[in-house]
Amino acid sequence: MAVRRDGYEVSALSFRYGQRHTVELECAASIAQHFGAQHQVVDINISQWGASALTDERIDVPTDGTPDGVIPPTYVPGRNTVFIALGLSLAEAIDAECIYLGINAVDYSGYPDCRPEYLAAYQRLADLATRSGLEGRGARLVAPLVMMTKTDIVRAALELGVPIEQTWSCYQGGEEPCGVCDSCRIRDKALIEAGHGELASRQGRARLGL
Amino acid sequence: MAVRRDGYEVSALSFRYGQRHTVELECAASIAQHFGAQHQVVDINISQWGASALTDERIDVPTDGTPDGVIPPTYVPGRNTVFIALGLSLAEAIDAECIYLGINAVDYSGYPDCRPEYLAAYQRLADLATRSGLEGRGARLVAPLVMMTKTDIVRAALELGVPIEQTWSCYQGGEEPCGVCDSCRIRDKALIEAGHGELASRQGRARLGL
Repeated sequence: MAVRRDGYEVSALSFRYGQRHTVELECAASIAQHFGAQHQVVDINISQWGASALTDERIDVPTDGTPDGVIPPTYVPGRNTVFIALGLSLAEAIDAECIYLGINAVDYSGYPDCRPEYLAAYQRLADLATRSGLEGRGARLVAPLVMMTKTDIVRAALELGVPIEQTWSCYQGGEEPCGVCDSCRIRDKALIEAGHGELASRQGRARLGL
Repeated sequence: MAVRRDGYEVSALSFRYGQRHTVELECAASIAQHFGAQHQVVDINISQWGASALTDERIDVPTDGTPDGVIPPTYVPGRNTVFIALGLSLAEAIDAECIYLGINAVDYSGYPDCRPEYLAAYQRLADLATRSGLEGRGARLVAPLVMMTKTDIVRAALELGVPIEQTWSCYQGGEEPCGVCDSCRIRDKALIEAGHGELASRQGRARLGL
């Protein structure tokens, strides 16, 4: 909870957007509760027009990686732009100073809406879009993880007391992490590199002989 | 239907966002049908955090105008930013070339998210946000009404064969337009100036003796 570390009261926001992995919403609620933060879920059905492996059952989640320079099929058109817009709306309604985002450009460099230049353009838009922005007290977009490696993110989470076993990364909608989608592979690799292979998925642990 | 005039196939998008005046959704559907256009409604409950007279029953819709330079209480935090983000998502999913918006800066100059500079900033963001934008074929934001007066908008609608009696502007949730909210007053004034006072609200017609 970098937000809490930075001294803010937290109002957490999650999105039910037609993703396969709605279990992430229960995880978000449980982590918010762990830190005593407010948490709410917004329903926003961008899966009604599909076009992503995360929201369209007809498109498979890749399980063998994506070549460099290719945007993976798990990219959801406009998703982060929608999420940040909703965060901006909430922030203005409750007079929040900052909007913290978990986007990360390093291990997911294929996603256009996870990069610092995207964030900078959004800040310029936000300052023009809102009453608070016009008055010079608009919410500041903050992405503490954007340039960190996944391994450094795991280390920071452990330092901040995040219950990693309650977090969710897997793209599939299963009972437990699949261990083979891009998100599981990157997470398992980071956990192992950070010296916490015991927190990896069953498949990740099996590969390690744990 | 400026979109149709410009030669495009139309996929219309409306939003059920907790507004008092949901009758505008039925009107949008009926106008889309009139022009043989596809139309869909997205549910996005930004009223869950209130903060606007349009979405929060505890805040009254003003009925006696708003002073110049003041953003009216009908401003919904981040609303157009959310709507355009959803349009961007749909546009990328269906490979649309343009996103047409009905925003207007002239008679509603109080709203920050209805201005050309806002739109230009959104275009820069959109080009960075999406796969199609990165590939140089991102959707172009088009706001044909942005610098027109309401009276010119009425004239253009009549020229294009828009069934004005099927359109809705009133901010209140009544069976018929209230005739006194800002939106009704501006509409009635424009209809009268365009020589179509017979299409004004009951109150607007009464003021004219029609």
